[in-house]
Amino acid sequence: MVGQALAGRLAELGHEVGVGTRDVAATMARTEPDGMGNPPYPTWAAAHPDVRLTTFAEATAGAELIVNATSGEVSIAALTAAGAQNLAGKVLVDISNPLDHSGGFPPTLFVKDSDSLGEQIQAAFPDLRVVKALNTLAAALMVNPGQLADGQHSVFVAGNDTDSKKTVIALLESFGHTDVIDLGDITSARGTEMYLALWLRLMGSLNTPFFNVKVIR
Amino acid sequence: MVGQALAGRLAELGHEVGVGTRDVAATMARTEPDGMGNPPYPTWAAAHPDVRLTTFAEATAGAELIVNATSGEVSIAALTAAGAQNLAGKVLVDISNPLDHSGGFPPTLFVKDSDSLGEQIQAAFPDLRVVKALNTLAAALMVNPGQLADGQHSVFVAGNDTDSKKTVIALLESFGHTDVIDLGDITSARGTEMYLALWLRLMGSLNTPFFNVKVIR
Repeated sequence: MVGQALAGRLAELGHEVGVGTRDVAATMARTEPDGMGNPPYPTWAAAHPDVRLTTFAEATAGAELIVNATSGEVSIAALTAAGAQNLAGKVLVDISNPLDHSGGFPPTLFVKDSDSLGEQIQAAFPDLRVVKALNTLAAALMVNPGQLADGQHSVFVAGNDTDSKKTVIALLESFGHTDVIDLGDITSARGTEMYLALWLRLMGSLNTPFFNVKVIR
Repeated sequence: MVGQALAGRLAELGHEVGVGTRDVAATMARTEPDGMGNPPYPTWAAAHPDVRLTTFAEATAGAELIVNATSGEVSIAALTAAGAQNLAGKVLVDISNPLDHSGGFPPTLFVKDSDSLGEQIQAAFPDLRVVKALNTLAAALMVNPGQLADGQHSVFVAGNDTDSKKTVIALLESFGHTDVIDLGDITSARGTEMYLALWLRLMGSLNTPFFNVKVIR
């Protein structure tokens, strides 16, 4: 869902977009909706002929900017499959969350508090410029924030490289975000990942994922 | 700070307020500001002659509603000192956060994710009606939310007893809160306690504790 939302919106904005997957043939052979009722990838792909599906390595090799929209538990494996040489020096927008669904709903976090998935990815790929972003709201609002309150709500970036954060902030603003708050270095990813515990309960209480917080100051 | 803010505001609104402490004489003998530069209790007490300082047991014995504004690491000890018989059947507004300052700033949490301090308090005192609330914003904004954006921002309650949550929601509204969101049972305290990780980094980034989130939906 998150990958499709990002890929679709980036293509719509005129970017050249490739989607990486573990096994292209297997992904294109899917005919069933996923566990959350979303249509299989080929249905989405048919509506987005300009977005090419390739391996993780091909998708990242020529990329200027990489988006990690994989499940948190497989993020490092997916980036490893992409190959460190295809990641080196590039900006990675890390949208993943370290959700552990093994205990049912709501999920817990498999890393937190004194570490984060953003930091683990940065540590595993030191030459990657990891910017944690967009992991705090529903996919539809990540890419089209104007659908809610004219985009008058807040998102966050965290990362060690100032220029990379500027690149990501500009990208988020191109989506329609009006309030992108720089929380600091990549350790600040602990804050946005742990916020998921509140987000999940708000979703339950409000009975919709179509909400976001605005930081009033 | 939190206790003084709550006690002062409750007294201002016409409630009869008592403050509990471990050792009344020791608290009244303080002459130095605390570690955060706040004046010692006697200075505050002199300006609030209507608020009586007593032991935890005396403060809770006659109370209709109890506020836990102790540091998270001593909350259960303070409530134990109050005595289970003085707590039974009463509503506890639990503002504490499970902050572990031993590793420096920002603090980590000594309980999280699969448990929370709110739950630990509820488990330790089954006859207490614990309502987690107000642990997500600065003391000044807890009790005078109208100081920021006319109170147009959000706070949360979590607890097992619906009537107790209604009591607390009414109390928060009497302070000026306009959007009190019921997150569900006391396990939802995990959400608001873990949000502290984001709150602390927002405070660092914004360089002020004078902010809050508004849930836009």
